[in-house]
Amino acid sequence: MELLKQRILKEGRALSEHVLLVDSFLNHQVDVKLMKACGEEFAHRFADAGITRVVTIESSGIAPAAMTALAMDLPMVIMKKSVSSILSDGIIQKEVFSFTKNAPYLLTLKTDFVKPGDRVLLIDDFMANGEAAFGGIALLEQAGAEVVGVGTVIAKAFQPGMDKLRAAGYRVEALAPVSRMGEGFIEFQ
Amino acid sequence: MELLKQRILKEGRALSEHVLLVDSFLNHQVDVKLMKACGEEFAHRFADAGITRVVTIESSGIAPAAMTALAMDLPMVIMKKSVSSILSDGIIQKEVFSFTKNAPYLLTLKTDFVKPGDRVLLIDDFMANGEAAFGGIALLEQAGAEVVGVGTVIAKAFQPGMDKLRAAGYRVEALAPVSRMGEGFIEFQ
Repeated sequence: MELLKQRILKEGRALSEHVLLVDSFLNHQVDVKLMKACGEEFAHRFADAGITRVVTIESSGIAPAAMTALAMDLPMVIMKKSVSSILSDGIIQKEVFSFTKNAPYLLTLKTDFVKPGDRVLLIDDFMANGEAAFGGIALLEQAGAEVVGVGTVIAKAFQPGMDKLRAAGYRVEALAPVSRMGEGFIEFQ
Repeated sequence: MELLKQRILKEGRALSEHVLLVDSFLNHQVDVKLMKACGEEFAHRFADAGITRVVTIESSGIAPAAMTALAMDLPMVIMKKSVSSILSDGIIQKEVFSFTKNAPYLLTLKTDFVKPGDRVLLIDDFMANGEAAFGGIALLEQAGAEVVGVGTVIAKAFQPGMDKLRAAGYRVEALAPVSRMGEGFIEFQ
């Protein structure tokens, strides 16, 4: 997606070979018009997939997932990383390790909101090692849903997540797959 | 906002005098079209306030805040509850107590994204005791911004947050201010 790639080249900062800072438009300050364009692009790419639910993992995926759900006229479901004291009945959980925070968290889903027969599009802001995506998929499949697509705004394609997901048979669409980066340069696939 | 109130009466469940469950359309499963309508309503109510930035606190406020920012054609800024290992420079923090999670968290803001002169609209999904709002306001004012409005999708108006904010001079708009609730009934102001 050219608009997104241009923005990454303009404002993104590769802090190392592995860390890409895009907090001026994606995950701290958010350009919601750009997110709307990303949502419309996901809706276009998955238009024929018979999606019934757009699911994301809190919290940086919420803005692009909300815009995707809006473009597809579907509900969004947010898988939680921590359990509220008032969210207790009918939940399923899976432990996921976050490399960014260097700590595990309990991914949580209420089974009222994803049911057997649902065809899910899982949206997130970033894909790197794929831990969050595989954790989310495991939980969604436990709920009886089929994950028919995974959409990520940015993929660090040189890290194993995207390849592992595809090898496991999942369709993955990355709007900006970064093939290589380092101080002063970012390259796309 | 009538559409929202009807939805709360239809799907909301008052689990006690103090706990309102609205996770089927607001904070776990999210009706993004309803959030868009909420965003347009906030944009309408604050149209003349000269807002320059829509700010929210992760994560349940992100969907309505994103739709508000979209309607107002402004950037959204998400104040974080936990600090990523890659978010380190130029941040300010404030400890806030969460009654829902019964634990404190460090609200975090990068000062690149809210600057002196900014006129902020702070959006959240719920207002109860006002802890999150007062914490967010303190951080935004520390950054040099003026908080010209606080918008909440639902307010538990019988808890002290909304009154305390108004007493402190802040303009608060609640799309659905609940005056009283209990098993089997929810009433609005």
